[in-house]
Amino acid sequence: MKPEANSKVVIVGAGFGGLLCARDLDGFETRDRRSVHVTLIDRHDYHTFQPLLYQVATSLLEPLDVAYPIRKIFRGSKNIHVRQAMVERVDFERKVVCSSDGAEHSYDMLVLATGSTTNFFGNEAIEASSFGVKDLSEALQLRNHVLACLERSVEFADPEERRRLLTFVVCGGGPTGVEFAGALAELLDLVVPAEYPELQREECQIHLIEGQERVLGPFHPSLSAYAGRVLEGKGVKLHLGVLVKEATESRVVTGDGEVIECGTIMWSAGVKPADLGDGCAAQKNKGKRIQVDRWLRLVEHPEVFAIGDVACVPEDPRGIPMLAQPAIQQGGYAAARIREIVEGKDPAGAAPFEYKDKGTMATVGKNAAVVQLGKLRIRGFAGWVAWMALHIFYLIGFRNRLSVMLSWAGYFFGRDRPSRIMTSPAGDSLSASVDEELKP
Amino acid sequence: MKPEANSKVVIVGAGFGGLLCARDLDGFETRDRRSVHVTLIDRHDYHTFQPLLYQVATSLLEPLDVAYPIRKIFRGSKNIHVRQAMVERVDFERKVVCSSDGAEHSYDMLVLATGSTTNFFGNEAIEASSFGVKDLSEALQLRNHVLACLERSVEFADPEERRRLLTFVVCGGGPTGVEFAGALAELLDLVVPAEYPELQREECQIHLIEGQERVLGPFHPSLSAYAGRVLEGKGVKLHLGVLVKEATESRVVTGDGEVIECGTIMWSAGVKPADLGDGCAAQKNKGKRIQVDRWLRLVEHPEVFAIGDVACVPEDPRGIPMLAQPAIQQGGYAAARIREIVEGKDPAGAAPFEYKDKGTMATVGKNAAVVQLGKLRIRGFAGWVAWMALHIFYLIGFRNRLSVMLSWAGYFFGRDRPSRIMTSPAGDSLSASVDEELKP
Repeated sequence: MKPEANSKVVIVGAGFGGLLCARDLDGFETRDRRSVHVTLIDRHDYHTFQPLLYQVATSLLEPLDVAYPIRKIFRGSKNIHVRQAMVERVDFERKVVCSSDGAEHSYDMLVLATGSTTNFFGNEAIEASSFGVKDLSEALQLRNHVLACLERSVEFADPEERRRLLTFVVCGGGPTGVEFAGALAELLDLVVPAEYPELQREECQIHLIEGQERVLGPFHPSLSAYAGRVLEGKGVKLHLGVLVKEATESRVVTGDGEVIECGTIMWSAGVKPADLGDGCAAQKNKGKRIQVDRWLRLVEHPEVFAIGDVACVPEDPRGIPMLAQPAIQQGGYAAARIREIVEGKDPAGAAPFEYKDKGTMATVGKNAAVVQLGKLRIRGFAGWVAWMALHIFYLIGFRNRLSVMLSWAGYFFGRDRPSRIMTSPAGDSLSASVDEELKP
Repeated sequence: MKPEANSKVVIVGAGFGGLLCARDLDGFETRDRRSVHVTLIDRHDYHTFQPLLYQVATSLLEPLDVAYPIRKIFRGSKNIHVRQAMVERVDFERKVVCSSDGAEHSYDMLVLATGSTTNFFGNEAIEASSFGVKDLSEALQLRNHVLACLERSVEFADPEERRRLLTFVVCGGGPTGVEFAGALAELLDLVVPAEYPELQREECQIHLIEGQERVLGPFHPSLSAYAGRVLEGKGVKLHLGVLVKEATESRVVTGDGEVIECGTIMWSAGVKPADLGDGCAAQKNKGKRIQVDRWLRLVEHPEVFAIGDVACVPEDPRGIPMLAQPAIQQGGYAAARIREIVEGKDPAGAAPFEYKDKGTMATVGKNAAVVQLGKLRIRGFAGWVAWMALHIFYLIGFRNRLSVMLSWAGYFFGRDRPSRIMTSPAGDSLSASVDEELKP
C-alpha cells in the first residue's frame, strides 16, 4: 500500500483495544513528516472500565469511577479526533464508515474494535427477563432493580412473595458471575440487617447456575474449588453442571427440572462479539468473531485490522480469551503495524501477533481473590491485595483512582456501600415501572 | 388530643424539612416511656441536596455527591421506618396515607413535607421542550442533553444549525438560573477549546431571560448588579424585564418579539408546591401552598402539620421563601410540637413558628458569589469562600463532603469538570433519541 502524506485511520470502539491503539498513534509522525489523522468513534462519550461494572451493579462504585470521558484522554492531541456516534455500516469497497448520525468517515486504514456484548444464545425470553453487566447502563439498571427488590419486599405480607423478591439468580459461573454473586452477598450482609429491620437476612437467597462442573472454568481446579467454597461460605447456593432451560421475570427452570422462583436474574453465561452484523461483510468464524490473519488484518482487506473480543486470531481455533489483556496487546500491535505502513514498510515483515498471557484474576469477596500467573497461583487475602493493586493501576485518571480507593477503603475498614441510590435520568418512569412490575 | 402509648407519625417527603423532622424524633421517648413510631415516606430511596443539583447538570458533581440513602441516615434507629413509595392520597377522616404500591399507612400525627416542583404556569409547550433542575433525574437529563449538543454539533457543516445547537437559553434569573448560567459558561470555557477542536467557543451562546428588571430579585440591588456584571463578563447575554412568550424545542420567543434559535432550554422561572393535588383536600392559598396556622397545623386537622415549600404560614401572605432554611427550621419546629403532644401538652401553648432569616447566598461562578445576611452583604471571592464552607458543612456524610471537596479543588486549582459522561440506565435509548432529535 502506498503511504499517503497524511493517512486517515478510523478506529471503531474505544474499549481497551481501540483506546490503546489510538494512544499509540497519538502524536505519531515519521521522519519525513508523514502523519496519521485518527478518528476514534464510540457510541458513548466515555471509555468504560468493564472489569469493575459488577461493583457499580452492587452499589460499591459510582458511574464516574469506571467511566472516563474519551475527549479528555486525548485533550490537546493534534491528530486524534473523537466522535460519539453509533457505527452502522462499513463499506470496505469505498473505504467508508457510516454512523447513525448520517456522517461518513473515509479511511485509508481501519481498526475494528467493537468488543463484545451479552450472549443470550437466541433465547428471547431470557433476554427480556434478565440483566447483563456489559455496559454502564446495564450495571445501573441492575443496581436499581436489586435495590428496588429490597424496598418492595418490605411491603409484602405474603412470605412466599417476599422470598421470591429476595431471591437472586446468577446465570454463569465465570469471573463476572462469581464476582457479582460474591459482591451481592456482601451487599445483602451489610445492608439488610442494618437498614431493613423489616427483613431477615435469611429470607434473601442467591443461586449461581453454571453449566460446567466447577466455577471459574479458565482457572486451575484448585482455585475453582477455593472460589466455590468462599461463595458457599457466603450463603450462595451453587448449581454446577446444570444449564438454564427457561426463564421468565419471576422464575428460572434449570435443565434438571428445578424451579427457582426469583425477583432478579443476572445473566453472565456468555458473551458474543459486538460486530456490525450485516453492516460488516467480513469473514467470521463459528463464534462470529472476525477472522484475521496473523498480523490481525482481514484476509480480503489487508488495510483493515480487527482487535480484541471481535477478532479471531488463527493460532487458536476458539480464539484468544475475550478479556482486557489481549485487547490491550492487540491495540498496541495494530498501532505498530499502522505506523510501519505509514513509514512505507510492509507490516507482514513484522513478527506475527503473539498473545502473552499475563495471568488472570477474579475476586470472590472481601479478602478473597484468586490469581493465576502461569504456574503461580495465589488465593485468599494475598490474591485480593494483588487484585486491588492491579485494578487501581489500570484505572485511568487520578480522580478515578482516588475515588475508587476511597470507596474500597470504606468497604474494607468501615462497612459501607456508598452508592445505594436508585437514579434514573428517565425520571419517575423507573420507579413507576418497578412498582408496576413488582406490585403485590 | 389524648396521647397514645406509641403514637404513629407519618412524614411524607424526605427533603430538608421531612428529614430534619424525622431526625428530631429519632429515639424520642417520654419519661413515662411513651414513644413515637415514625414512618418516613419518599418517592426516592435517597435525600437530595437540591441546592447543588445545578452542579450535577453542569458536569461538576456526580449523583452520589448530592444524594444520600435515607435508610443509611436512620441506620440502627429503633423508631424511624423508611419507605420508598409514591404517596397518592391522604384520607384525613380515616387518618390514612395511601401509596402507589397499594400500602396504607395509618397515623395519629402526619407531617406533609412534599416540597416543590417546577412551575411551567400551565404552558405545556414549554414544559415539553425545556429542562428543569428540581431533582436528580432532571439534572442528569439536562447534563446528558448539554453534552449531546456539543457532540452532535461537531457533525453539522451548516454554521446556522451548529450555532443553534450551541445556543443555550436559561429562563429565570433567580438563584438557580444564575448559578446554572454561570456554571454552564465555565463548562464551555473549559471544555470547548481544550476538547472540541472542531468548535469555536464563540459559536456557543448563553441567554438568560428574566421577567424582573434585575437578576437575583430577593437580593439587594447592588448584589444583583454585581451578579449581572459577572454573568455578562462570562459572555452570558441578559434579557431583563422580558417574559418568555413561547418555546419549542428549537426556539424561544420573548415577550418583546425576539426569536432565539436554540438547542437547549433550561427552565427555572418558577416553582410550585408539590402537594398531593386532589388527593389532599387541604385548604390552599393562591399559590397552592397548604394553609397552616401559626403552629404549622392544618386548620381543619390539627393533627396534621405541613412544612417547607408546601406550607403557607399565616404571617406572610406570599409565604416564607421556598428554600432549604425555612424547611429545616419548620421540620425542627414540627418535631418539637409532636413531642409535646406525646407528652400530653397542647402544642398551641408553645410560641408560634417564627422564621429566622439566616441569610441567602448564590454563586455566579468561580471566585464569585453573593451573600446577604441581614444588612451584611458580601460578594466576590470572600462570598465564594463563605458559600463553599456553608454548602460543605450542610452536605450530609463524610464521603459526600470529601468527594465534593475533591471535585471543587480540581475545579479551582486545576481546570476540570470530571463528570463529563452521558449515562443512562435506559440503555442506548438516550443517545438514540438524542440522535433522532438532533439529526441534521
